[in-house]
Amino acid sequence: MILNKNYLNLQDSYLFVTIEQKVSAFQRTHPDARIIRLGIGDVTRPLAPAVVEAMKNAAAEMSAAKTFRGYRSDRGYEFLREAIGGYYAAKGVALDISEIFISDGAKSDAGNILDIFAAENRALIPDPVYPVYVDTNVMAGRDIFYLSGNESNGFLPLPDASQKADIIYLCSPNNPTGAVYDRAQLKNWVDYARENDAIILFDAAYEIFAGGANLPSSIYQIPGAEECAIEFCSFSKTAGFTGVRCGYTIVPLKLKRKVDGADIAVNDLWLRRQTTKFNGVSYITQRGAEAVFSQEGFRQVQENIAYYQENAKIIAAALTDLNIWFTGGEHSPYVWLKCPDDRPDKCPGDRSSWDFFDRLLTTAHVVGTPGAGFGASGEGYFRLSAFGERDDMIEAARRIKENINIW
Amino acid sequence: MILNKNYLNLQDSYLFVTIEQKVSAFQRTHPDARIIRLGIGDVTRPLAPAVVEAMKNAAAEMSAAKTFRGYRSDRGYEFLREAIGGYYAAKGVALDISEIFISDGAKSDAGNILDIFAAENRALIPDPVYPVYVDTNVMAGRDIFYLSGNESNGFLPLPDASQKADIIYLCSPNNPTGAVYDRAQLKNWVDYARENDAIILFDAAYEIFAGGANLPSSIYQIPGAEECAIEFCSFSKTAGFTGVRCGYTIVPLKLKRKVDGADIAVNDLWLRRQTTKFNGVSYITQRGAEAVFSQEGFRQVQENIAYYQENAKIIAAALTDLNIWFTGGEHSPYVWLKCPDDRPDKCPGDRSSWDFFDRLLTTAHVVGTPGAGFGASGEGYFRLSAFGERDDMIEAARRIKENINIW
Repeated sequence: MILNKNYLNLQDSYLFVTIEQKVSAFQRTHPDARIIRLGIGDVTRPLAPAVVEAMKNAAAEMSAAKTFRGYRSDRGYEFLREAIGGYYAAKGVALDISEIFISDGAKSDAGNILDIFAAENRALIPDPVYPVYVDTNVMAGRDIFYLSGNESNGFLPLPDASQKADIIYLCSPNNPTGAVYDRAQLKNWVDYARENDAIILFDAAYEIFAGGANLPSSIYQIPGAEECAIEFCSFSKTAGFTGVRCGYTIVPLKLKRKVDGADIAVNDLWLRRQTTKFNGVSYITQRGAEAVFSQEGFRQVQENIAYYQENAKIIAAALTDLNIWFTGGEHSPYVWLKCPDDRPDKCPGDRSSWDFFDRLLTTAHVVGTPGAGFGASGEGYFRLSAFGERDDMIEAARRIKENINIW
Repeated sequence: MILNKNYLNLQDSYLFVTIEQKVSAFQRTHPDARIIRLGIGDVTRPLAPAVVEAMKNAAAEMSAAKTFRGYRSDRGYEFLREAIGGYYAAKGVALDISEIFISDGAKSDAGNILDIFAAENRALIPDPVYPVYVDTNVMAGRDIFYLSGNESNGFLPLPDASQKADIIYLCSPNNPTGAVYDRAQLKNWVDYARENDAIILFDAAYEIFAGGANLPSSIYQIPGAEECAIEFCSFSKTAGFTGVRCGYTIVPLKLKRKVDGADIAVNDLWLRRQTTKFNGVSYITQRGAEAVFSQEGFRQVQENIAYYQENAKIIAAALTDLNIWFTGGEHSPYVWLKCPDDRPDKCPGDRSSWDFFDRLLTTAHVVGTPGAGFGASGEGYFRLSAFGERDDMIEAARRIKENINIW
């Protein structure tokens, strides 16, 4: 028995473990400090009442022989796929419901989709990045090359025609930077993918934060994307489902690639993967997800999103006052800031993101996430999350301003 | 972009599609026939009241900010892993809860576990077999060799010392045959795996049907298995969770393999796989699964199992009366019978399992699953499932007897 040696090439993911250790150590020596945590990317608002009601009703159905539901092992229930289809129609994207696959979250599918691609494909991954894109490709032994996000491109890198990629990861609104591609930029990517016969894996987990703005919230708002892109989305951020687990993946019927001269529909391959290695999502959960798209449910989840967006504005306003460069915070729950540096002759960004983490923890008692944890190009930057309670957000903003002002 | 060409080597899985087409065609031409379906392997009894109550309570917790639960991305909640640990302790198997991983079902994990093994391992798969074992290895391009189940070994094949395997699939109580390995037979497999440095993937999805008998319901009841086996289990059959989705996988801490001279714990690799490509199971579902192990919950699920076992006895008794060879039906919801053949000079088993399917459908109006759908060694055999309502089972048994008697 030979283990998959590629696993030994994974970087140990100490990021959140190290954060926890540092926070615990500080709390031990400063038991009176009230630490505010803006480090995690997890929602904090409870589920919408309409969602909870739908799940309770579905649980009750499962307790009677006549309404009990067993296996459902293909793309998921029609009622939910139709509701998602309606949501996309409102964005101007027409989907056939056979293009929609219900999943247990965007992360699982963004990892598992690689099953249907050969190991010799080259992956293009923007940096800084959600670590799952890198790790899942390392596990398969794929060549990876990176594209740097930085202040000059607003952490929205565009394709370099001289580089040839087969698999392209895009996440917009972005985790960790909160930056959002506009239509022209995404068209640039779609054109590049089509020229290079590449497939874009578009992570739309934060799409609801782009809603209302004139920004794309689906790659399929760009003509031609249906021939070169797969989109992953989730109810985690949209409706607070991080602990409930439901998402969906869109694989257009027009997305085909040649194998030995024959056109193969990627949708067929993904269906085969899922029916073989996945048994679908709980009926109860799917009923809860369906309720997100009811009039009442959608109003309730939008209230939560507005709450987080207001939180983000409070953080962003403090940074603006401090004259600190940042991106995100408007169409995203994340604010991505350039670490200020108070040392003589040092520029902003010279301070390492871990130094800034320590400084913020020990002076303002605020926890964030060092940008270096998201890749080399994240060094010198820092992520603050707007998930949390309003009072904490106001207090964190006050402390950040107060402390950075006197450094 | 190059697709994974191994997918094109998959056999199309027309089994249940073909069954549906044949049943529909017959029903159209015989609208008055009341067809009884014993073809599927899906449960029919509703969820236990204790499970539904626990899920409703958990949904209510998710609707309040104070009790809301978000991400939980490692092995699953301790409360459920401790309950599973208690269940195994009662079987005489001591587990550390870090050896238990909560999953969304045995199928997903039995497929996904292959991620952590190199593609060059050779898989040994008994035939007939649950098709997922074959398909997931074909997808990865692995060499597969088969070990034949047949009447003389009671569909419980034992290892052949001359064959070298790296990955071994065992399913006991077996799907589709219902046969159950005894301790001596499983010890044979454990010894073989240890001698060959192989890893056994033990599918215990039907373990609850072996309970009460002096038959192993966990591979870890065999000494030494903790150094060579991974066990997959599920609440699907135990507690009717086919539509709720929860299972668990046991990866013993003592299971290690060398990579470049260093001992690597398989548990560490699987944890890394799951935290990277899986976000865990709904909190609500995990609370439902925990309730399975409460005194009340376990009594309720055992009532359902006893109901299915009584169904199986009814089918088995009819076959005994008809003097038809079969296995299963005692410690399994499946009865696996040798197709009788009424043609002159023909022996039982000569009739193809699809012929028998047609004959049973058109004369007795009973639907089963042709053994050929589970592999070459299934030809000439047939699976009947005891999942269903009692009245249907009695009526199906009566019709089978009546019709086969006059053939």
